Amino acid sequence: MQKGIFITFEGPEGAGKTTVIQMVENMLKEKGIDVVLTREPGGISIAEQIREVILSPKNKEMDGRTEALLYAAARRQHLVEKVIPMLEQGKVVICDRFIDSSLAYQGYARGLGIEEVLGINQFAIDHLMPDLTFYLDIRPEIGLQRIEKGRSHEINRLDLEKIDFHYKVREGYKLLLNQFPNRIKEVNAEQSVDDVYNDICDVLRGFL
Amino acid sequence: MQKGIFITFEGPEGAGKTTVIQMVENMLKEKGIDVVLTREPGGISIAEQIREVILSPKNKEMDGRTEALLYAAARRQHLVEKVIPMLEQGKVVICDRFIDSSLAYQGYARGLGIEEVLGINQFAIDHLMPDLTFYLDIRPEIGLQRIEKGRSHEINRLDLEKIDFHYKVREGYKLLLNQFPNRIKEVNAEQSVDDVYNDICDVLRGFL
Repeated sequence: MQKGIFITFEGPEGAGKTTVIQMVENMLKEKGIDVVLTREPGGISIAEQIREVILSPKNKEMDGRTEALLYAAARRQHLVEKVIPMLEQGKVVICDRFIDSSLAYQGYARGLGIEEVLGINQFAIDHLMPDLTFYLDIRPEIGLQRIEKGRSHEINRLDLEKIDFHYKVREGYKLLLNQFPNRIKEVNAEQSVDDVYNDICDVLRGFL
Repeated sequence: MQKGIFITFEGPEGAGKTTVIQMVENMLKEKGIDVVLTREPGGISIAEQIREVILSPKNKEMDGRTEALLYAAARRQHLVEKVIPMLEQGKVVICDRFIDSSLAYQGYARGLGIEEVLGINQFAIDHLMPDLTFYLDIRPEIGLQRIEKGRSHEINRLDLEKIDFHYKVREGYKLLLNQFPNRIKEVNAEQSVDDVYNDICDVLRGFL
């Protein structure tokens, strides 16, 4: 039934995902490949409503498991209404963050357990794992510096807590690289954006 | 940590759950037992918000798996904010519908699979299964007649479809009785309400 190819990009903020995804899209389009970009909740009304519940600042009592179930629910709806129809049309679908973000952030860094969060997400995706996933690896302090560039403050206590958390996220991604070595390809995102892009193109050439 | 007792009531509409739960609550109170009734979403703001997404008539595109994940999310939050604190205070908590409703309705009758829906709900409840569950068994046409009593129309095509669906729900509950024979107690809800109540009291006497 699925004729297209499903590619996801993962990695922390500051890894340059947005920029490099745009470059990949342009390259594929120039080759005449029918490619579409998306990210959850992706304009899907039900997924947007769920995301509002997750992100509403008034929902301070939100339990970690509730949050993980809501992310899985939004994922399901985005997949059913947007990703699957495009794959059925034979498109290359590139999604900015997908299941591995939940596994690294909620499963590992927040301590819910990678296997537990994988379980509810397998229910959500119903076997539709990405065909290929790029993990853009960067040390958290380098990623943070990139994001903060232009802001005037030095790294403070909150930033350090953030860095600590993002080291856990990174550890989580490294565990996923071991668990899914065929699907997930690691790219060194501390390189220049052109080098990151070239590494991705090397993998894509072998894949498409 | 849990000092209280967690009791749930299950069964189709028209089985008389509401009436009999009220009778059980009164009886326990008269015995000086600290008992509280609840049902999802139970006034818990986050659970109410999730329920709104599930039930909104505009959300026609809602996928069955999305819905099951949302029910599990609302269940989690109601459990964390309401049920667990009351159990920790040593109360007897009676909940009108819980995990078995999802298993019978979404898992079996809607065809998502009992084991699959059990998986996401085990994530949601994190080992907090009810100590005791009463399943009020009634043939769907009898339950429907009770609900319709006072309404003037005869049973029509839509009612028959409803009856068909509720036979599947009932089959689902029967499978759960086999799967959880120690936890779930079946009560014949086609009897008079007093006889239903007495059967429940017999089980409770042995349990409390």
